[in-house]
Parts: sequence; C-alpha cells; structure tokens
Amino acid sequence: MKTITSRQNAWFKRVRDALREHRDEIVIEGPKFVADAIAGGWKPMAVFSSESQMTFSRELFAALSETKSPQNVIALFERPRFALSSVLSPRSSVVVALDGVQDPGNVGTIVRLAAAFDCAGVVLLPGCADAYSPKAIRASAGTVLSIPIVEATVSDLKDLPIYAADARGATIDPPARAAVIVFGSEGSGVSDEIRSRAKLIAIRTSPRVESLNVAASAAILLSRSYDAR
Amino acid sequence: MKTITSRQNAWFKRVRDALREHRDEIVIEGPKFVADAIAGGWKPMAVFSSESQMTFSRELFAALSETKSPQNVIALFERPRFALSSVLSPRSSVVVALDGVQDPGNVGTIVRLAAAFDCAGVVLLPGCADAYSPKAIRASAGTVLSIPIVEATVSDLKDLPIYAADARGATIDPPARAAVIVFGSEGSGVSDEIRSRAKLIAIRTSPRVESLNVAASAAILLSRSYDAR
Repeated sequence: MKTITSRQNAWFKRVRDALREHRDEIVIEGPKFVADAIAGGWKPMAVFSSESQMTFSRELFAALSETKSPQNVIALFERPRFALSSVLSPRSSVVVALDGVQDPGNVGTIVRLAAAFDCAGVVLLPGCADAYSPKAIRASAGTVLSIPIVEATVSDLKDLPIYAADARGATIDPPARAAVIVFGSEGSGVSDEIRSRAKLIAIRTSPRVESLNVAASAAILLSRSYDAR
Repeated sequence: MKTITSRQNAWFKRVRDALREHRDEIVIEGPKFVADAIAGGWKPMAVFSSESQMTFSRELFAALSETKSPQNVIALFERPRFALSSVLSPRSSVVVALDGVQDPGNVGTIVRLAAAFDCAGVVLLPGCADAYSPKAIRASAGTVLSIPIVEATVSDLKDLPIYAADARGATIDPPARAAVIVFGSEGSGVSDEIRSRAKLIAIRTSPRVESLNVAASAAILLSRSYDAR
C-alpha cells in the first residue's frame, strides 16, 4: 500500500478538485457509504483507505475532509448521468422535483427521503444546489447513488400531473404514483410557473407557525405517498 | 440612537458571552424573529437595531453573527425556564422528548415541528444539544420561544405512556394526545432504558434505506399525531 503524503500528488489534487468543482467526478467519504456505493454497482475510479492500494496521510485526509472527524476512507466516482426519461417513465411511484432549493443539506436530505420512500427519482429544477456536492452527499447519508437525479426545467415535466407543496393549497392526500411532487425554496416556496400549473397540497399545521422546513414537508408528503402505494 | 463600535463595550461583551455560553441569557437574531418573540410576550433585556435606542456598528454585528449575512437586529432575552409540570400536564396534545439528539440543528428543527403540530412541549433528556444555542434557535425559525422546553430524565416521564420512534417497532399510528413521543440520536436511536419502557413505532420505508433522519421521523409522526387530534 502506498501512502500519499504530498499535496503535489496528482491523486490528491484530483480528489481536491472533485470536491471543489463538482464537475465530472464526485467524492464519497466514509467506509460505509463507499461500501454501499460499490455494493450498488458503482465502480470507483480510485479508493483511498488503509485497506486499498493507496491511502492518504492523516494530514491529507484532514485537508480533504470538511468534517471535524475525517473517516480516512475516500473514493472517487464518475459523476452519475441519468436520462430524464429514466426518472419520468416508472409510473409505479412518484417523482420528486425540487424548485430553487438552494441549501445542499436540504437537497441531500430530500434525496435520502426520496430513496426511503421509493420515489422514481429526483428532478432538480433551476436554482437548486448540486446534489453531488460534498455537503449534499453527506446529508443524503450514502443514498445519493441509489436513486437517479437529473436536472430539468418545468416544461420537461409536461407528461405527468404536477403537485406542489404549498401552504395555500388544499389539505388533500398526495398522489401515490404517476405524478411529480414539487418542493420549493424555503424562503419563497415554488415558483409562480409551478404554482399556476400544479395542484397545491397543504400540510395541516397549527396556525401559530407560518411554514414548515422544506425537508419536513417532503418527509410528511413522501411518507404519505408511500403508505398509499 | 447610540451606535456601539467598541469591542470593549459592556453590551457587546454581554451579547457575545450569551452567544458563547448559553447560560442565563439567550440571543435572538433577525427582525422577524425578534418581533415574534416580543409579540409572544417575551420582554427583551435589550434590543440592538437601527430602530432601537442602541445598535452595533456593522463590524460588531458581523463579529456577533455566525451567519454570512447578519441581519443587524439582535435582542437579548432572559433564558426561559419552564416547570416540567407545565409541559407534562396538558393532556390534549403530545409531548416530544429528545434522547441524546446532539446536533443543535436537529434540536431546533424538531422544536419548530413541535410548535407546528401543537405539541405541549419539548423535553430534552440527557445528551441533547442546548435548544437555546444560536444554531438551534436559527433552526427553530423563531419558534423557540413559542413552546415550553425543559430538561428532564426518563424517570420524570413516568406519568405518561411513552412511545418511541424506532425502526424495530410496529408500524402503528402515533398517539394523538396524553403521551410522550421520544426521538433518539441519529447514530444509535433511543437509549436502552427508553426502548425497554416505550411502545416502539416504526415508519414504513423502502428496504433500501436503513433509517430516516431524526427530524424527518419527527415530521412524519408529529404530523400524523396532529391529524388525529
């Protein structure tokens, strides 16, 4: 096993660039999440750990990790690319779409929920954080590679009925299948375009709060959709 | 109006210490959250803003704020103290208890959910983050002063039936009232003591994920409890 100790090393630079730039390569950290990804059929371009052919020194792992306690296992994967049709075609479940969800922690948390409630995939409409950024991947708790994620525009969704979480909507049950459920940004909710085209679903809450966090709304509606399947 | 510009100023030091130490005084940031707290009947010990008698210079606001865009409104409040009985007595709703939830963002998010779903209060069992830390207060989105929060031990809960979110439980409906619902730490769930005393409620999820985030579990179960009230 080779221990990489220099910041000039090409692998170190490549992992660092993948973490910073979110382009063609993505980084998964932690023994469990790396093992899950590999078990899910993803082939890492390189794995750095004490049980692999290469590893980084403690200092380099610390330099790469954004967390306080680096787990000393890092793998580099090609960025997944899915066709929109692979997300929109399965009609046995619902598609989650995010509209301007800027916080990568919220994007990752909702990816995890979409996996937990067997959604067909996640569509990122304009204005969303990258689902493959380190923070989103961490928030997804290793599920980011278990569900297709695509970028698209509202007009790409035209073949499916659209529902959107919106406090001004009716307290109806979310669809169980063959539909898109849109969640908007925490500050302003879904866009006017979505609001005009979607059936709006409100979640019953006490009048003493104005809104729920977007990930909480997703948890509640996706769980209900799953229970109705 | 007086603009405080020195880091040696006693008010600056007092706000800074309240932010750091989470003892007898707590800090609420942002015009809306400060206004909500005052509307809710809380009397600030001091408000610092361009519309108050005192304010801080831009530099001092930036030094006090943990966020990238300080909102230039800060108020200092006495730390709320509630009697445990005020949380456990109302039987028309449920009590939320957190068991070893260490992340202040999760604690604040669940406080917001408890307010949204009209819970009687939030009990922090041992090992939880402070609900009045700046990060928890931000995650609560201004609801932290709208609901009683107390620290207690499991034995303090003996007068109410205890339910706990646990993947090993049965997929039963959560109680609507006169009960405690416990949520445990993300890593290890609820403690053995809680697990042995509680009725365990599981949330139906796809077998492809192992667990839900604790705030997602709380969103789902508290929403269902509210809907059944």
